[in-house]
Amino acid sequence: MTTHTPYVVGHAASQTKHHEWRTAENSAPHLLPHLKRAVQANPHLKLLDVGAGPGTLSVSLAQHLAPSGHVLATEIADDILVRAKEHADARGVHNISFQKASVYELPFADGEFDVVHAHQVLCHLDAPVDAVREMVRVTKRGGLVALREADMRMWCVWPEIPALLRFHELMVEVLVANGGQDKGGRKLVSWVLEAGVERGDVEAGFGTWCYSEPSDRRAWGEAMVERLRTGQMRGKGIELGITTEEGVEEMIKGWQEWIETGDATLGIMNGEVIIKKA
Amino acid sequence: MTTHTPYVVGHAASQTKHHEWRTAENSAPHLLPHLKRAVQANPHLKLLDVGAGPGTLSVSLAQHLAPSGHVLATEIADDILVRAKEHADARGVHNISFQKASVYELPFADGEFDVVHAHQVLCHLDAPVDAVREMVRVTKRGGLVALREADMRMWCVWPEIPALLRFHELMVEVLVANGGQDKGGRKLVSWVLEAGVERGDVEAGFGTWCYSEPSDRRAWGEAMVERLRTGQMRGKGIELGITTEEGVEEMIKGWQEWIETGDATLGIMNGEVIIKKA
Repeated sequence: MTTHTPYVVGHAASQTKHHEWRTAENSAPHLLPHLKRAVQANPHLKLLDVGAGPGTLSVSLAQHLAPSGHVLATEIADDILVRAKEHADARGVHNISFQKASVYELPFADGEFDVVHAHQVLCHLDAPVDAVREMVRVTKRGGLVALREADMRMWCVWPEIPALLRFHELMVEVLVANGGQDKGGRKLVSWVLEAGVERGDVEAGFGTWCYSEPSDRRAWGEAMVERLRTGQMRGKGIELGITTEEGVEEMIKGWQEWIETGDATLGIMNGEVIIKKA
Repeated sequence: MTTHTPYVVGHAASQTKHHEWRTAENSAPHLLPHLKRAVQANPHLKLLDVGAGPGTLSVSLAQHLAPSGHVLATEIADDILVRAKEHADARGVHNISFQKASVYELPFADGEFDVVHAHQVLCHLDAPVDAVREMVRVTKRGGLVALREADMRMWCVWPEIPALLRFHELMVEVLVANGGQDKGGRKLVSWVLEAGVERGDVEAGFGTWCYSEPSDRRAWGEAMVERLRTGQMRGKGIELGITTEEGVEEMIKGWQEWIETGDATLGIMNGEVIIKKA
């Protein structure tokens, strides 16, 4: 039996603040057209959202399944599940439930769900292929598995403030030191095939996030400042010798400068896959 | 007066073969929703496609403007204009005309076009801001300028065949040696603001190309093999000391191996901008 690294990024306020920016529209564009067709064919759709974090994307997906479809959102961490449920209640979304579960051992029967979705989950795992295999198992034949994973190396910032280039290196190195995957986007098709799926049952593409409008820049930049102040990137980065206290302070100043820069832009590329379970 | 580097990539068969894969759907997704609305509002839309190359994307845009709208496609190179016209005739598309012109000195009055479009043009220029200013000049108030430029550094291939990583370096270094821009995608907003456009009149995002399906992999891979055999990348790369004859042969073998690899993927990120001319 494999022992897996737990999710170590943590759910500090800084992490979840930016996660809460996420909606089905901005973070699951590859799934939406498929989901619309599936809901039309079966209004009582059952969707499993694996590794749901603060639940914003799960709640947004549940809204697309209303009124008769249902989302079950799972997470390995207890505390964030409570916050996710609070978020659903605050939005008045009731066709969603929450359950603690490991993506490696989903407590569900084979073929229990019409759609299984995971967003930025595999990139935090040391055995992503095992997770894909488990997600495919709980999907019914003819159902869909939708995956979206950042390629952490495919990240570009403008202007190229030196402290922000160092921030990018720090982020990637901490992810890798925690057992995560720095090239998840480009490897996604490879993981899926390794999990036993045929290439002909896979639709693959890339999607992006762009932070360039002043309000998006502020949402991202402030989340990064908070993460540098309170998240584990600071401690872990210093512990690993990748940065110093001064280095972290420069990164904070770098993001503050970037937020205020009129032509500033940040682009991130994600791998996107839809598996049609045969 | 600025002297500008001409377009030096060349229009060898290898270059145009891959260019012909391009359609409005796969290469102008940022423009299409705006274009549909504009055509509904004014069926007699006039669109200028700057740096149209073999004209495939121009012809695809003309099909979206049919029957009453018109595309004028310009190019600096005579020979490719002839091929572009042949392509339009072969497709039976007649609401398009062709004209030789430099993007730096467009032979049109201020505000002559409803929509001005350029795709992968600025990245080949040594003065992209001058080109943007000129494109904005010939756009009417209330009209649109649509730009899409690769960020040549935002390029990822899987599996990471060493010769293909060297191919990427060769491609970028030859582009830069020719006076082109290796980070056009992330700089696009910056160029547009430098050309005098207000940030509030700009919609910015990133789009991608994904080559992963077997047929897309073959289209791309074979075009790269042809380009390495007959294009100027080989000669220029060897002249600059970036590669050798043996190095080029290894790159050819690398692409041939990649075409046949079931889990192979290539991702490229493009900056995308829509300017609403105030």
